[in-house]
Amino acid sequence: MNKKTYQQRLQRCGSLMKTEGIDVLILVKPANMQYLTGDGRLCAYAMITKDLQVVIGVPQTDIEDVKRLAHFDHIVGFEDEVGLIHSVAHYFKDFGITKGVVGLEYAFLPAPRMGMFTHPHAKPEGVEPKDCTPLMSALRLVKDSEEIELMRQAGKVAEAGMKSAIASIRQGMTESRVAAEAEYAMRQTGADDFYKTYVSSGRRTNIAHGLPTQRILEKGDLVMIDVHPVVEGYCSDLCRTVCVGKATAEQKAAYDLYVEVLETAIAKVRQGVGIDVLEQTMHDIFTEAGHKDHIFGPPIHGIGLEFEEAPLPAGHAFFHGEKGPGPLAAGTVIALGNCGLYTGPWGVRVEDTVVVTEHGHMVLTDFPRQLLI
Amino acid sequence: MNKKTYQQRLQRCGSLMKTEGIDVLILVKPANMQYLTGDGRLCAYAMITKDLQVVIGVPQTDIEDVKRLAHFDHIVGFEDEVGLIHSVAHYFKDFGITKGVVGLEYAFLPAPRMGMFTHPHAKPEGVEPKDCTPLMSALRLVKDSEEIELMRQAGKVAEAGMKSAIASIRQGMTESRVAAEAEYAMRQTGADDFYKTYVSSGRRTNIAHGLPTQRILEKGDLVMIDVHPVVEGYCSDLCRTVCVGKATAEQKAAYDLYVEVLETAIAKVRQGVGIDVLEQTMHDIFTEAGHKDHIFGPPIHGIGLEFEEAPLPAGHAFFHGEKGPGPLAAGTVIALGNCGLYTGPWGVRVEDTVVVTEHGHMVLTDFPRQLLI
Repeated sequence: MNKKTYQQRLQRCGSLMKTEGIDVLILVKPANMQYLTGDGRLCAYAMITKDLQVVIGVPQTDIEDVKRLAHFDHIVGFEDEVGLIHSVAHYFKDFGITKGVVGLEYAFLPAPRMGMFTHPHAKPEGVEPKDCTPLMSALRLVKDSEEIELMRQAGKVAEAGMKSAIASIRQGMTESRVAAEAEYAMRQTGADDFYKTYVSSGRRTNIAHGLPTQRILEKGDLVMIDVHPVVEGYCSDLCRTVCVGKATAEQKAAYDLYVEVLETAIAKVRQGVGIDVLEQTMHDIFTEAGHKDHIFGPPIHGIGLEFEEAPLPAGHAFFHGEKGPGPLAAGTVIALGNCGLYTGPWGVRVEDTVVVTEHGHMVLTDFPRQLLI
Repeated sequence: MNKKTYQQRLQRCGSLMKTEGIDVLILVKPANMQYLTGDGRLCAYAMITKDLQVVIGVPQTDIEDVKRLAHFDHIVGFEDEVGLIHSVAHYFKDFGITKGVVGLEYAFLPAPRMGMFTHPHAKPEGVEPKDCTPLMSALRLVKDSEEIELMRQAGKVAEAGMKSAIASIRQGMTESRVAAEAEYAMRQTGADDFYKTYVSSGRRTNIAHGLPTQRILEKGDLVMIDVHPVVEGYCSDLCRTVCVGKATAEQKAAYDLYVEVLETAIAKVRQGVGIDVLEQTMHDIFTEAGHKDHIFGPPIHGIGLEFEEAPLPAGHAFFHGEKGPGPLAAGTVIALGNCGLYTGPWGVRVEDTVVVTEHGHMVLTDFPRQLLI
């Protein structure tokens, strides 16, 4: 993305800061830093004033590397956490900010790190902190064409990962080794990174977060695979459930129902539709099919620079420090199929990443949905 | 680990709670939950009273899976975040706790999640929150023989990962594909999971956190590889720097110096020695060799259920909500070699995982330290 993109983002940021009554932002969450500056890394900060001055603070060692990636001039180094605090204090002074409101990432900073940025050595006494989580989520909500292209690439990488994982499935494999195949293929096809790969099997397909274990796959096991590769910072999210050998009629019916639920919901995705409407569509079909008590978890979440970001369903949003979602805007990207159909002895899930458009949608994870094996 | 181990841990926990004036703990950090109950997972909580009553709250779907792993009787399910809050409130009532102090993980919980546990619907009005980070770190500081055995296994897995990564290095490989080789080998040899693999090359070996990118390896590049596999929850930490082809005399000298620094420090590791003494030993040798301005980052950190945990160097500890470290106790496990020797155009690091013993130490990551290629 070129400098102009970042300048436009910065201008939108400045407008939102004025609306929200925030005079200066201090960001440390890599996804937020990357969105506004072109670089997001650990142990760093970006300071942005409402009149669009930008400082990027990084470990002293990283200055040259950041200059290669970031699009703004004030790039400064520090030696350690104390240096970081002094660096922030220096720029409060340099920018002449002695009072007003500093936006901080309340949903990202645990208390000791919040304490760094509200410490009297960092922040002028007259400056009050305020949560900037909703502001940053509003800024990042609608993706531009370059972002969607990267997410499409991440979708292709997810497909490669899923294909390798499924190809490896047989009796005697472990869940962890199935995850290995997915992760290896994703890096081979261009992933810079990935969020945790989920692989669960047998009874473990029934649990909420099926991280892989050393469980050995047995004949007749369902295997749930969920991958989240990252390409240039952007994610995709793809989940399928397959079987070691032949699924039972009951499993096949549940899986086919899930595909029907997903496809019905995707068909309704377009600008102006609410996440609640899509959720209700999905819940209604599950319920009518007698699975009311088998639905677990919110079925939809936003995706972009993080594999789970705004828009989030209202209840979920509250506990993530986010606002409840409005009607979907064109350019928003969501993953549908995040809820389990969990029957007790086994569960199924099918999930895809979808862009909301003015007149409909585009699916970014183009992988067959059938219960393949 | 058997039930007795968890009962002993629980008793030590109860004693520390009384010392710290904490009446009830609410844990959500998976490493803390796992240490005390045998199970640690996302979106769950453990509630522990000073008279050693234990509740484990998990997603409704996960109850059977948790029963298989956890060692206590009160295992309860909830449907969502609101259900979690009500579940906590229920047990405050059930245990008859209406006043006193609740220990919460201040260094883990960002504000919205802290808000869940201090919400009037969760916590009785007369109960005041207090940070339990130092208590949990004190509990977990000294590892028993079963824990050290798992970390030894994690050390073996790290060696397999490092071996595969190094074997893959040649012109034309990308950093991300080198990471793929390490991760694949680690899962093949028993890793359940891993913390982020670091692979940096060329100029990028000079940066503080060298996460892999699509950079293509060139002849003469240094390549820094840092792996952190997890076996049954326990980690190891292993870093080596190698070269694509032949290193320059200057690079070789810097690398050999780093090995000397590391081996000198490891030789001093034993019960009663301070981390500050080991740090100073390392810094002195670097400084005497003319590299005073090339040292970056704290060189030592604790390791166990997390790849970075107490004991941490004093400055670092403060910003992680931890107490500064005392003299090393036997059974503590540390990683030495976490600081870079960063010259500007390139850097080197060599890191190993070491158990502190009464009369010396045991190295858990047994991999050649030479600059191999």
